[in-house]
Amino acid sequence: MSNSKLVSSVYRDLQSHICQILEKADGKGNFQKLEWKKELGTGLTCVLEKGNLIEKAGVNFSQVSGILSEKMKVVLGIPGSLAGKYTATGISSIIHSSNPFIPTIHFNIRYFELSDGTSWFGGGTDLTPIYIDLDEARLFHHKLKMLCDKHSDSFYDDFKTWADNYFFLPHRNETRGVGGIFFDRISPDHSNSFEHLFNFTQNLAAFYPTFYAGVLENKRNKNYSDHNLQWQRLRFGRYVEFNLLYDRGTKFGIETGGNTESILISLPPLVSWQYNYQPESGSPEEKTLSYLRKGIDWLQVKPGK
Amino acid sequence: MSNSKLVSSVYRDLQSHICQILEKADGKGNFQKLEWKKELGTGLTCVLEKGNLIEKAGVNFSQVSGILSEKMKVVLGIPGSLAGKYTATGISSIIHSSNPFIPTIHFNIRYFELSDGTSWFGGGTDLTPIYIDLDEARLFHHKLKMLCDKHSDSFYDDFKTWADNYFFLPHRNETRGVGGIFFDRISPDHSNSFEHLFNFTQNLAAFYPTFYAGVLENKRNKNYSDHNLQWQRLRFGRYVEFNLLYDRGTKFGIETGGNTESILISLPPLVSWQYNYQPESGSPEEKTLSYLRKGIDWLQVKPGK
Repeated sequence: MSNSKLVSSVYRDLQSHICQILEKADGKGNFQKLEWKKELGTGLTCVLEKGNLIEKAGVNFSQVSGILSEKMKVVLGIPGSLAGKYTATGISSIIHSSNPFIPTIHFNIRYFELSDGTSWFGGGTDLTPIYIDLDEARLFHHKLKMLCDKHSDSFYDDFKTWADNYFFLPHRNETRGVGGIFFDRISPDHSNSFEHLFNFTQNLAAFYPTFYAGVLENKRNKNYSDHNLQWQRLRFGRYVEFNLLYDRGTKFGIETGGNTESILISLPPLVSWQYNYQPESGSPEEKTLSYLRKGIDWLQVKPGK
Repeated sequence: MSNSKLVSSVYRDLQSHICQILEKADGKGNFQKLEWKKELGTGLTCVLEKGNLIEKAGVNFSQVSGILSEKMKVVLGIPGSLAGKYTATGISSIIHSSNPFIPTIHFNIRYFELSDGTSWFGGGTDLTPIYIDLDEARLFHHKLKMLCDKHSDSFYDDFKTWADNYFFLPHRNETRGVGGIFFDRISPDHSNSFEHLFNFTQNLAAFYPTFYAGVLENKRNKNYSDHNLQWQRLRFGRYVEFNLLYDRGTKFGIETGGNTESILISLPPLVSWQYNYQPESGSPEEKTLSYLRKGIDWLQVKPGK
């Protein structure tokens, strides 16, 4: 079996595993499963809407191939010297909760192979709280560091910095949330074999739904007000801005004629924009904003009262 | 006075006139006025939120200058051969109503001048109904045709087609709404003098708030249901997709370090995304979708029952 077929087959099994964990953690919602087939490939879109705590979750698997175009190279930041036929397979997922104290989580892994034999993995996971919870942010980064450290001494630091820079809204001068890890075009080489990198992405796929299930369990009974919901909608607006203005996966999908509804599952269920909203001084909303910046060492943050 | 200063001064007066018409038509809301100053220029942002019928309206004036960059040329579709210092001045406006039977309207005029003397006007106006109203769409196009015909025999046909192609969401295969007119890089020449084109943009600026005031008057007492509001939020989602994925003005503003809050006033107040929503067969929602395509001769549409 070619590497590309192997990855594709394992990722597809992982998708089903992820959905099972999330359904169990939610306790009510069920994933609708929709196979799609377009000119450039096939996919399985899994969507859960109006669950108990999960308001909207998408877990997409896809497997596409074609000829590398100039536009794709620009959108994906692929060096201009590369060319030929490509195969790409991956899972991407976003979960939004109805409860404003439960963060949004994003996860993605992908494998890209060119006809000349060049190949690489990319992916990441990041957490976007509506209200920052320093314990939760520290735990998320701590677990990611442990996961990374099993594979390479440099992965956590490198990929955490990459996430800070990638999940960033320059027009707001804000990070999307508390970050996580992001990596792209990591090719097998003498220090990281194909098996090693493949394994790393599988571990990441096992990590994020388990972590999120823990968050749901923790915050299951946390009450919230209309004011909290209003803030959630405004923060969801930032999520939309990031995904439509900057996210490479979204742009890649839209520009290559991918499945629109599957790509835009990432968009939150209910969003608002209000001109020049400023949170009150000393409020939890203002505190959250103060943490939306690059370079925070989340392993060391100390919760206040 | 240079042409650029003249246009700027006239446009600024027009902005104030537009706001007065809209305030009067709404009957409750008032425009907040906020001057801004950034490295590349100055502006006056006028915002009305939570009016009687107008839920959110922005009327922005700005006057910016700088050196034409490669990025700007790509975003604005300016030929690569042009270079040097530019001055740009314009008004852009979007109005969203709380009532789903009242459409969103967009309007923009701008004047661009390069240090080598090259200059052009651009702009347009288009109507985005939540529920299509064929009489209203026909009246909008009829009035635009009369306005265009006073200036040139070819303006309406050319600019209507341009709007069909510009206000289009390829990933949905949908037009944004019922279109209107759109034009860009119309330079003064032997058939259209500077004064002639300048006049055309001023007439357009007088037209759109007057037309919208008529729509508000017409539909002031039209009742709506929660179902209508839900459809409004979904359609507002398409508006967000267009503005963040494709709109040149938005991209230009965001990428050149413009005033983020002023640029993103265009985004509707309350928006939702729902996976793969399909309107019921024979419903008003389905009828609306059936009209969201290019090439409709709105001057000839016949309302059904």
